Amino acid sequence: MKYKITLILLAALMTGGLFTARSQTQVVEDFKPSSVNQPGKEYPMVNSEGRVRVQISAPNATQVQLDISAVKYDLTKDENGVWIGESAPQDEGFHYYQLWIDGAAVPDPGSLYFYGASRWGSGIEIPAKDQDFYAMKNVPHGQVREHPYYSKTSNSMRRCFVYTPPGYSKETNKRYPVLYLQHGGGEDETGWSNQGRANLIMDNLIAEGRSVPFIIVMDNGTWTMPRPQRNREEGERPGQWPPQGWADGFMNTLLKDIIPMIDANYRTLTDPEYRAMAGLSMGGMQTRVIALANPDVFSYVGLFSGGSISTEDVNNAPGFEENIKLVFISYGSRELENQRRGPWGDPKENTEKLKEAGMNTHFYVSPKTAHEWQSWRRSLYQFAPLLFKN
Amino acid sequence: MKYKITLILLAALMTGGLFTARSQTQVVEDFKPSSVNQPGKEYPMVNSEGRVRVQISAPNATQVQLDISAVKYDLTKDENGVWIGESAPQDEGFHYYQLWIDGAAVPDPGSLYFYGASRWGSGIEIPAKDQDFYAMKNVPHGQVREHPYYSKTSNSMRRCFVYTPPGYSKETNKRYPVLYLQHGGGEDETGWSNQGRANLIMDNLIAEGRSVPFIIVMDNGTWTMPRPQRNREEGERPGQWPPQGWADGFMNTLLKDIIPMIDANYRTLTDPEYRAMAGLSMGGMQTRVIALANPDVFSYVGLFSGGSISTEDVNNAPGFEENIKLVFISYGSRELENQRRGPWGDPKENTEKLKEAGMNTHFYVSPKTAHEWQSWRRSLYQFAPLLFKN
Repeated sequence: MKYKITLILLAALMTGGLFTARSQTQVVEDFKPSSVNQPGKEYPMVNSEGRVRVQISAPNATQVQLDISAVKYDLTKDENGVWIGESAPQDEGFHYYQLWIDGAAVPDPGSLYFYGASRWGSGIEIPAKDQDFYAMKNVPHGQVREHPYYSKTSNSMRRCFVYTPPGYSKETNKRYPVLYLQHGGGEDETGWSNQGRANLIMDNLIAEGRSVPFIIVMDNGTWTMPRPQRNREEGERPGQWPPQGWADGFMNTLLKDIIPMIDANYRTLTDPEYRAMAGLSMGGMQTRVIALANPDVFSYVGLFSGGSISTEDVNNAPGFEENIKLVFISYGSRELENQRRGPWGDPKENTEKLKEAGMNTHFYVSPKTAHEWQSWRRSLYQFAPLLFKN
Repeated sequence: MKYKITLILLAALMTGGLFTARSQTQVVEDFKPSSVNQPGKEYPMVNSEGRVRVQISAPNATQVQLDISAVKYDLTKDENGVWIGESAPQDEGFHYYQLWIDGAAVPDPGSLYFYGASRWGSGIEIPAKDQDFYAMKNVPHGQVREHPYYSKTSNSMRRCFVYTPPGYSKETNKRYPVLYLQHGGGEDETGWSNQGRANLIMDNLIAEGRSVPFIIVMDNGTWTMPRPQRNREEGERPGQWPPQGWADGFMNTLLKDIIPMIDANYRTLTDPEYRAMAGLSMGGMQTRVIALANPDVFSYVGLFSGGSISTEDVNNAPGFEENIKLVFISYGSRELENQRRGPWGDPKENTEKLKEAGMNTHFYVSPKTAHEWQSWRRSLYQFAPLLFKN
C-alpha cells in the first residue's frame, strides 16, 4: 500500500507536479501570446482549447478577475504578487475582455485596445481554423485612410475611414464601386478595420481574384443628436418611412454628407448599381431602414446579425424589388440557437420567402460563433465576392 | 470666543466645506473633461492651473494613485468606493500617465490610449495657449493612410502611416516633396499623427499658406533585429560611417525599402532637393546619423530634442555642406535648463558655429516645455514652413 502511494506521487512529480491543479480543471499547457498583444508583451496568452490566460502584477490587491464573455474568473496570486489565471474555452475569433482589480474594471496592460462596448478596452484573438482569410500576407495591399470632413447636417467635423483597394493609387484612370460598411452599437468607425480586419479580408479576396476591387467607407453610425424635425416638404414615403429615430440622423448624414463627400474625393462609380450598404448588428438594422427607404441609392444590401427583410417590407418599399440586386442576411449559428434575431421574424424564413418572390438573396450562417466579430468577418468574406458582378 | 469660532465654521460651510482641503493645497475648481477622453467620459479632467484630476471606482482597493510626469499622487476614496484626486500643475501639452491600483499599473479607463513609454497607455492634454495651431478646424484636410508593405531587408510585412496633403486626391497631375518624420524611443509609427497631430498642424499651415503642401511618411524606427553584417564591398565611408548600430538597421530599411516604396506608390518629387528627414529624440538621433551618411538623399534635416550637428560632423561628411539646404535643431526650454541635450555638445553653440561656417541653420526653443510632445508639435510647426522653398 505504501509502495503504491509512492508510485502515484512519483508519477505526479514526473508530469510536472500539476496533478493537483489538473484534478479540478484539465488545462492544456500549450499557451502562446495572443496575436493582438502589445509589442513585446508575453501575456495575455491563448491555448489550443481557446482558453485565455492573463497575468498582472498587483502585489497589494485582494481580488483580481478576468472578465470575458460575461463570466468573471478568479486569478490566483503567487509569492511575488503576480496574479494569474485562465478562462474556460472561448469561441474562435475576437473577443472584448477586461480585468477587475479590487473592484475596479480596467483594461489589461498587455493587450492592444479596441473600441467596443462603448469603451476602448482589451481584446483577444482566439486562433480560428479559417484565420487565413483575414491574415496579413505578402499580397498587394490597399490602404485604410483616415479622412476628416465637415458635415453640414451636424455643423461639425466628422471622420471616416476609407479603404482603397490595391492598385487604386496606380491605376489613376480607373473608377471603383463603393460599399458603405457600418459597425454595431457601442462601436465606432475604427471597428471594421481594427478588430474586423476588413482591409485584410479584401486584400486577400482580391489577390485570389474572388472579389472585384471596391472602395469601403467606414463611418460612425452612432447618433446622439436630437432627432431633426422632418421636412414636410419632402412629402410622405410609404413603408419604412419615416424610419425609426435612431437610424434617421445617420441616414441624413449618410445621404447628404458622406456619399457626396466620397464621390467628390475618390474615383467612385456613382451609379446606384455600383453602391452597396452593409452593417453588423445596429449597423445592419440601420442598413435595413436606409436601404428600404432609398432603393434608388443602393443596389446591394447586407445585414450581418442585424435583422432581415420580409416580403411585407419589400411590398411597402416601392422600387426596392426592382432595383436591389442582392439581399444578404447572415447570423452566427449560436445567435440562431439562442433565437437572437431581432424583432423582424425568423431571418431564414424571411429570406427564403424573399427568394421565392423572385429576389436575389443569400443566407449565411457562421459556424459555432455568436454575436461577435468572427461572425461578421466571415459575413464580409461571404458577401464581398457577390458584389458588383451583375 | 465661542461666537468667533462659530463664524469661522459658518464661513467654511458657506464656501462649500472645502476649507480644510484647501488649507493644504489651493486647487482652482474649474476642471473640465480632457479633450482626449473616451467618448462620453467625464474623467480625467484638467483645470486652468494644468492640474489633472482622475476618478475611478475601486470599492475594494486600499491604495489608488495617479502617476504622471514621474510623480505619484494618492487619491482618496469616498463612501461609494470611488477614488478621486489630482496632480500638481503640469506643463502645457500632451503627457502620458497611468493609474496604480493596489500595486497594479494600469491605463485609466476614461482616457484615450497612445503608444509611448513602450506601451499603449493613457494620455492627457493640458490646454495650451497656442493650441490653435494643432486644432481640428473646418479647413481642407489631408488624409493619414495606413500603408502595409513588404520589406525585403527584414523579410516581413511592415506598415507606415502616410500623410497626403489637402488636394492630393484631386490634383492628380501634381507631384509633391516628402518629409520622413520619425518618433522617439518607446514610441512607434502612430505617434506623430495621434499625439503629435502632425496632420492637423500641416492642414492648418497649408490653409494659411504658410507651408507648401508635402507628403509625410511616418514609419517605425524601432529596431530590434540583430545588426546586419556590413557589406564590405560598399567600401568605407568617412565620419559617421558606420553609424551607431541602433540607427543602422532603420537606415537600411529606410533607404532600401521605404523610400523606393513611397516613390513607387505616391506622386512624389524624387529629386533629393524635395526630400527631408526629421525626428524627435531617438528619431532625431537617427536623422542625424542617416543624413550625415546620406547627404545625397536628403536636403532638409530636423532634429527635435535629438542632439545637434557640429562643424566637425559636417567636415567628416563629404557632400553634407554642399547639398543640405537646412539644418533645424530644436529643444524644449526645460531640456536646455536641465542640460538634457545628448552627447554632442551644446546644441545652440554647435548650430551657431554651423551658421558661421556658412550653412543655413535654424535653432528653436519651445517655451516652458520639456522632453515632451508639445516641444515636438511646436518644432514641426516651426520646421515645416522652412521646407522646400529654396
